Amino acid sequence: MCRFVALILVVILVAPFLPAEEGMWLLTQIDGLGLQERGLAIPIQEIYDPQNPSLTDAVVWLGGCSASFVSPEGLILTNHHCAYSALQRSSTVERNLLHDGFVARTRNEEIPAIGFTASVLDTVEDITAQVLSEVGDLTDPVAHARKLAQVMTSIRDTREGGRTDALVVVANMFEGNQFLLFQFTRYRDVRLVYAPPLSVGKYGGDIDNWMWPRHTGDFTYLRAYMAPDGSGARYDPANIPVRPRRHLRIARTPLTEGDLTFILGFPGRTTRYRCSPCVRHFRDNVYPAVIRDYEERLAAIESATRTSPEGELALASTVSGINNSLKKHLGVVESMHRLALEERREARERALIARLSQPGDREVARKLLDNVRDLYAGRAEPEHRARVLNLLRGSGAGVLPSLAFSIYNTARQREMPEEIRDPEFSERAIERTVERLHLRYYGFFAPADKALLRRALSKIIGLEQLQCRDALLSLIGEGDSSLDAFLDHAYATTQLTSAGAARPLYRLSRRDLDGLDDPFLDLASLLFDDIETARRKEEEFDARINNARRTFLRLLRSANGSSIYPDANSTMRFTFGRVEGYDPRDAVTYRPFTTLRGAAEKATGEVPFDMPEALLDLSSARNFGQWADPVLKDVPIAFTHTCDITGGNSGSAVMNARGELIGLAFDGNYEALISDWEYEAAIQRTISVDIRYVMYITEKLGGATHLLREMGVETR
Amino acid sequence: MCRFVALILVVILVAPFLPAEEGMWLLTQIDGLGLQERGLAIPIQEIYDPQNPSLTDAVVWLGGCSASFVSPEGLILTNHHCAYSALQRSSTVERNLLHDGFVARTRNEEIPAIGFTASVLDTVEDITAQVLSEVGDLTDPVAHARKLAQVMTSIRDTREGGRTDALVVVANMFEGNQFLLFQFTRYRDVRLVYAPPLSVGKYGGDIDNWMWPRHTGDFTYLRAYMAPDGSGARYDPANIPVRPRRHLRIARTPLTEGDLTFILGFPGRTTRYRCSPCVRHFRDNVYPAVIRDYEERLAAIESATRTSPEGELALASTVSGINNSLKKHLGVVESMHRLALEERREARERALIARLSQPGDREVARKLLDNVRDLYAGRAEPEHRARVLNLLRGSGAGVLPSLAFSIYNTARQREMPEEIRDPEFSERAIERTVERLHLRYYGFFAPADKALLRRALSKIIGLEQLQCRDALLSLIGEGDSSLDAFLDHAYATTQLTSAGAARPLYRLSRRDLDGLDDPFLDLASLLFDDIETARRKEEEFDARINNARRTFLRLLRSANGSSIYPDANSTMRFTFGRVEGYDPRDAVTYRPFTTLRGAAEKATGEVPFDMPEALLDLSSARNFGQWADPVLKDVPIAFTHTCDITGGNSGSAVMNARGELIGLAFDGNYEALISDWEYEAAIQRTISVDIRYVMYITEKLGGATHLLREMGVETR
Repeated sequence: MCRFVALILVVILVAPFLPAEEGMWLLTQIDGLGLQERGLAIPIQEIYDPQNPSLTDAVVWLGGCSASFVSPEGLILTNHHCAYSALQRSSTVERNLLHDGFVARTRNEEIPAIGFTASVLDTVEDITAQVLSEVGDLTDPVAHARKLAQVMTSIRDTREGGRTDALVVVANMFEGNQFLLFQFTRYRDVRLVYAPPLSVGKYGGDIDNWMWPRHTGDFTYLRAYMAPDGSGARYDPANIPVRPRRHLRIARTPLTEGDLTFILGFPGRTTRYRCSPCVRHFRDNVYPAVIRDYEERLAAIESATRTSPEGELALASTVSGINNSLKKHLGVVESMHRLALEERREARERALIARLSQPGDREVARKLLDNVRDLYAGRAEPEHRARVLNLLRGSGAGVLPSLAFSIYNTARQREMPEEIRDPEFSERAIERTVERLHLRYYGFFAPADKALLRRALSKIIGLEQLQCRDALLSLIGEGDSSLDAFLDHAYATTQLTSAGAARPLYRLSRRDLDGLDDPFLDLASLLFDDIETARRKEEEFDARINNARRTFLRLLRSANGSSIYPDANSTMRFTFGRVEGYDPRDAVTYRPFTTLRGAAEKATGEVPFDMPEALLDLSSARNFGQWADPVLKDVPIAFTHTCDITGGNSGSAVMNARGELIGLAFDGNYEALISDWEYEAAIQRTISVDIRYVMYITEKLGGATHLLREMGVETR
Repeated sequence: MCRFVALILVVILVAPFLPAEEGMWLLTQIDGLGLQERGLAIPIQEIYDPQNPSLTDAVVWLGGCSASFVSPEGLILTNHHCAYSALQRSSTVERNLLHDGFVARTRNEEIPAIGFTASVLDTVEDITAQVLSEVGDLTDPVAHARKLAQVMTSIRDTREGGRTDALVVVANMFEGNQFLLFQFTRYRDVRLVYAPPLSVGKYGGDIDNWMWPRHTGDFTYLRAYMAPDGSGARYDPANIPVRPRRHLRIARTPLTEGDLTFILGFPGRTTRYRCSPCVRHFRDNVYPAVIRDYEERLAAIESATRTSPEGELALASTVSGINNSLKKHLGVVESMHRLALEERREARERALIARLSQPGDREVARKLLDNVRDLYAGRAEPEHRARVLNLLRGSGAGVLPSLAFSIYNTARQREMPEEIRDPEFSERAIERTVERLHLRYYGFFAPADKALLRRALSKIIGLEQLQCRDALLSLIGEGDSSLDAFLDHAYATTQLTSAGAARPLYRLSRRDLDGLDDPFLDLASLLFDDIETARRKEEEFDARINNARRTFLRLLRSANGSSIYPDANSTMRFTFGRVEGYDPRDAVTYRPFTTLRGAAEKATGEVPFDMPEALLDLSSARNFGQWADPVLKDVPIAFTHTCDITGGNSGSAVMNARGELIGLAFDGNYEALISDWEYEAAIQRTISVDIRYVMYITEKLGGATHLLREMGVETR
């Protein structure tokens, strides 16, 4: 008894002295993290080994999400919300896979996950020297930024060599201080295998989103297929399942509080090294404006889809995405105030200056901060302008107007000399856009599109010094009724109503496009100069601010050595932690596991707490099969741990000390919404669905025992 | 180290085997509760001793609230919300004691707590035999109920003997199976001594009400005065402080989780022995109707006071009370569903029948339950009628109409022979009504009164088979504008605009009142027959249902012996428990202490989270004086424990194992709102303000160190 107690005391006394589990580490940095001391039970080379198969080979990149192989036959586990758009695209109001879930009882029943690719990392190379030498010494920030973009694109294109199943990512680390080249094999035939119903996969919906305690069964199975020759071909019935170099094994020992966890995945974007003036600017300007924009777009969509199940389904993914971002942005602003993040950053900047050993560096740092402050002053106006005009570049103004602008912009950019062309319009990039063009139509519903365009045009017409003002007014008229007439006419006569009709237009010249007399292309033509002017101004600002950031990161690294990790940029990262709850506020403790019983307690019968009857019955009968936790005496649904993740990590495999699959990361917690800016060890948690719940649902609700067998799980 | 651990283990292993801490026990039952085994460090006689001074002598009854003496000179501690109406009554828009708080630096600065009396229990007697013999054998339930009421009133009046400082309560225990006589000395000169500002005393407001974690400094000091001869006289500058037989000492050892706690106070009303048909009826009929009524009244008041600080102040106490009840009722209905309380009660009834040893008793029980079921069938209509008409009897129809009805009703009841007169209209009761008449005017604000009366009249006119329908229509006219005209005229011409004018009317006969030609008295006269008819029907129902309940309790007691306690009925009760948090839902643990830091974290600067700047400063400077807890390293604000309380217990002293004052009970938790119906050991908690926060605020924010000295607390 006493020895046991002593052991606990040792853990309690020792654990706090290990550094916090912050960090989205590069694969080459894993070695220095002291993982063995923290309980890792496998060699580091088991995790990442450039020469031999390792766990990184089981990791799959889905673009916006992460995933992993869980069988030798290409079976993939990711989040339900990652496969959401695939489920939506294959759904109709009558046969709603999103709502009802989907199970393929045989390989033949698996259906294409439309628009999905599964990329597997083959190699990583440090190409910093090559990039820097090719860019050369350019003192003008804009010229430097353009040259850098061209060099990176050219290296990428060269290495991809036009192979459709090759994906090369040249990634800029530490704000331009290091360049890594990631080479992937891209499997383009991905199929849906099993998804639980929405009432499991999105249980709790937007109410519970970002929240702990959580009871969401956020998982879906996909399968990657390849051509019989092993290449990543498009969908073909003759394709065969991918045979990964490595796949993950399902953990069969109970997970408990304090257990080591780690994640390999593709975190999207963090901004942890931004300076204090940037924090202030985002807190006071950018985010409040973005929040308003989201709210207005949601309102427009809601009013246009309220009475149409078809419209609701078409916009489901869009609405889900906006809601998710909205909640996040609200939380970030709140936390920036609560944590006094600006002041923290000021303190960090003072500390950095004090730590720099060269007096020259200190001077550089001081000037740099002044420069950043100057750059942000007066940003509100041009940013507002760019945000409004960019509604046409993104899809904030509806799908068809945005497609029209993309087509027209392609023609215009192609006319320009490379020095001033938008770097995002390389021929390779245009090719990818055209390839994915049809996906945009899944989110198209004319009334919603109209509502979004109506709002966008009202905002654009309100901009000062709009070059196209008169022309625009003569196109859309003045007042609501003439605007409505324009919209009705435009949606009735446009030729862009299908991907098949739109695709060939990417090959046309400006003159050809003008000749088509399409209302949306006319609108694009009319707005082009304003939009392009704004884009160039933004490009110039970005070049200047990035220049300052590069210097800042150089100084920070010179003061901190190897102890810092680069901001997330959708490249593969490693993060580790422990299973642990947290104290969200005074007198409240969140424990690290939720249970099936907790899900049943939340059930109201109404969306999003419309737990399936069959699952309620399983719960009340305590029919847990082999998936109950011995301590909880119930099926664990989700758990919290201290891994450091962000968007893009969704779907990532969470592994235990033995490298076995214990869950899928699917969210961060509300209290740490600010995590992209700042890691708060006491409250930042990754929320993951417990692999035991994944197995439980797959077996007991889905009846997909064949998948369990495929994963090597004995079913009793 | 090991011994310490062993001790903890013993506690952990032993504690769960003691029965749950349910029960509002009679003073005579304390002996059988095994308190010594639970850690009580004083003899039971220290708590209650009929012969010698004991802790019960330090307990004060304020009518709706409990309180206790904390100094030898009559200083009383109770809840801020208990003294709320006294603070309101002495406030003006310019000098708002409710908002700003109040401190009397000397005895001379203490001001009358208008309408407050402090009653101290002198003796308790079991008078069951006397009551039963005087009532005799009456088989008709209505005759029995009337006779019982007359007997109880007569015993009370005889024992009070007309002394104004005597208060006798004849209490019906176990639904008429036992009668106890409680004799009090009633001190009628109570003064305000110290109240924190609203932003401490009601911090968190209606948002946090019923909620844990809680940060409310819910306390106020009063002082009871007596005539120099020791009698409980009215306010007089010549009065002297009461010298209680016993007062409580402030605990000076830190309170910690698991510590024994107990409470002596006056819980108001519970319904823990009600049968299943009653649960169903309240859940489906009574509570939903009451909730609607509250919501409509709040809306009416809100619209009438929105723009008037004066009106807001006048209605503050009323609104606070309705909000409190509304939240509670909503929670009760929710919990009745969640806990399936009806089914639980059915199970209890089946178990009771199985446990009864006499077959005759089993038959009685079965018939009784059938009878109760029949009684509740068809209750919806008469109850609705009574509820609407009773708006005039309570103050749901505004202050003046209700006063007019009280005056007119008094005259009418006096005309009646005792056998059919409303038992609430004994001469002694009328006297008390007149004595407290002036207090009703503090809650009077004409526009709110009008809004409430307008709503009540619309509801009354909507009743079917209203005898006075034609007369009422000819008084108030048809349609909104004529109703408004009537209201304007009535409030402009009524004579009831002050207590001075209203008081003498209680002596007038019906004919005299008719002669006054007052619009509200006319309204009362017109509605009287309908209201009196409804009252008699309710009286009849009550008599029948109470008859059944009496039998049910007799059976329950015969099956359970001394292990049950009577439902709360505003008599002094003892309850004990332990300091303990709880798990409100899956994966969430509430810890039992909140802290000053937690209060500061909630602060927004806006009501109800407008924490005083001075207190925020004290918190951020960690200026805790002697009041920090050694474990929390902060000033504890509130704590949860397992004592079993209800409304009326508010203000009760919470004591530790040594009988020292550790806090004041002020609320129950949201998860256990159903506690009046059912005690749920796992989640029912009493929320108490920690005495250390009381002392801290008194000393550091209020600067009232003289009070600390008076309580024997050394100030450093």
